[in-house]
Amino acid sequence: MCPSPVKPGGRRGYLMPIGGAEDKGNDPRILGRFLEICGGEKARIVVIPTASRLPDTGTMYSDLFMDLGAEKALFTDINERSDCDDELLLEEMDAATGIFVTGGNQLRLSGILGGTPVGQRLRRLNAEGIPIAGTSAGAAMMSQHMIVGGASGNSPREDGVNLAPGIGLINTAIIDQHFSQRDRLGRLLTALSYNPFLIGVGVDEDTAFLIDENSKGEVVGNGVVTILDASDLSHSSRSSASSGAPLSLVDMRLHVLAEGCLFDMQSREVTLC
Amino acid sequence: MCPSPVKPGGRRGYLMPIGGAEDKGNDPRILGRFLEICGGEKARIVVIPTASRLPDTGTMYSDLFMDLGAEKALFTDINERSDCDDELLLEEMDAATGIFVTGGNQLRLSGILGGTPVGQRLRRLNAEGIPIAGTSAGAAMMSQHMIVGGASGNSPREDGVNLAPGIGLINTAIIDQHFSQRDRLGRLLTALSYNPFLIGVGVDEDTAFLIDENSKGEVVGNGVVTILDASDLSHSSRSSASSGAPLSLVDMRLHVLAEGCLFDMQSREVTLC
Repeated sequence: MCPSPVKPGGRRGYLMPIGGAEDKGNDPRILGRFLEICGGEKARIVVIPTASRLPDTGTMYSDLFMDLGAEKALFTDINERSDCDDELLLEEMDAATGIFVTGGNQLRLSGILGGTPVGQRLRRLNAEGIPIAGTSAGAAMMSQHMIVGGASGNSPREDGVNLAPGIGLINTAIIDQHFSQRDRLGRLLTALSYNPFLIGVGVDEDTAFLIDENSKGEVVGNGVVTILDASDLSHSSRSSASSGAPLSLVDMRLHVLAEGCLFDMQSREVTLC
Repeated sequence: MCPSPVKPGGRRGYLMPIGGAEDKGNDPRILGRFLEICGGEKARIVVIPTASRLPDTGTMYSDLFMDLGAEKALFTDINERSDCDDELLLEEMDAATGIFVTGGNQLRLSGILGGTPVGQRLRRLNAEGIPIAGTSAGAAMMSQHMIVGGASGNSPREDGVNLAPGIGLINTAIIDQHFSQRDRLGRLLTALSYNPFLIGVGVDEDTAFLIDENSKGEVVGNGVVTILDASDLSHSSRSSASSGAPLSLVDMRLHVLAEGCLFDMQSREVTLC
């Protein structure tokens, strides 16, 4: 799906993909920052733990947001597609000032929420100004073209990545997570080799890329965000590569950005803040 | 990419995915129908043979359209991404009343045209009313989520399909081609298992699915169009399937449509014409 259009006079809400394993104890600055943009002590957070099969993921995050000072934090119980028709749940989403999607398996998010009222609500609410954060699988699902698997390592290969349709909160970027920790440069390069219009965004653990209404992304946290920009790609061996072969990619631009850096996804320029 | 928005008062042009191997001799009714919607004897057709590596694909189709009565038919010479900046080529596209994309390898289309002025033009011109047809790889590339490979056979499997970002003329459907001839039901089912918002459209050889401005598709030609509608999907084993395993999909709706049938992709209803 494509992101919902923003109505005249409106503004799109923040998107905050997090690379997984965000600090929940000593230095919860990523979750704290999310709470702040959702209204701080007036924040009403809905947690969607559908990606996870662990029974306490929803409780853990809603407790965390309450401890950090939210007015209200609750979690949904969505395990089947039919759960997404629940009117009470949809009313809770409509009343939220922010939505947080946990980690787990991104195929549960696309497979259970895709094409349901909850999937539609996520896109529509974000277009109406509601911030949405997601960690790990919750970050991956934001992309229209979602990474669901692939080889680890630095080099792109013909068979280096598996893509699937995500929930589609953003269509200009393809977001990968646990990026440095799981050695995922190769699979993100492979994803871009298919169609160079995409911007690759690789987010490390305990790191977030906070994207504002103007498509400017700010790095928050203790790791880096890796940006791949294929605007000037002059050659790719993608279409002629044999099965499993390494790929040539010429003139790919790479940025590695720590906290204090901004990347504008429209102009494709880095600024320091 | 997403389809370009239609401006107020405008209408989207036809899209005509063709399943490959359309009759070019005795009964060229598919190419003739395309020419008709492009203006008949006033049609000015631009052929994009980039998917093909054969030297005469462009000439063959431009000659065919001239033989069928077009006012003008020419083909572009795009083999590298840098070719897509050519001003003369872009002017020719702007003056066309229809664009035809040949078969070959869809990864050449996404990899060479994606993110270039030609890729953008295809989306914009279609949103401004210009019909676009594509056969085989030229049909596959229309989808936002494009099938680039997969297993043959009737059953969906965990590893049954490879997806990549297409040119994105349509975002509600995923189009497969050579459908019955190459036994591709399994890979289209697999594609839908990732995210059930999609409509699966499997187009046979010598068959087209002519989609109008209201997202109604008409079957034209000698084969069938297979529609998969996952609106009511109640269960999928996608997210829990082990590597290479067959998938369970419960409550998938299937239509097999020959000439004389219409499928409305908004209401998801079949009518006979």
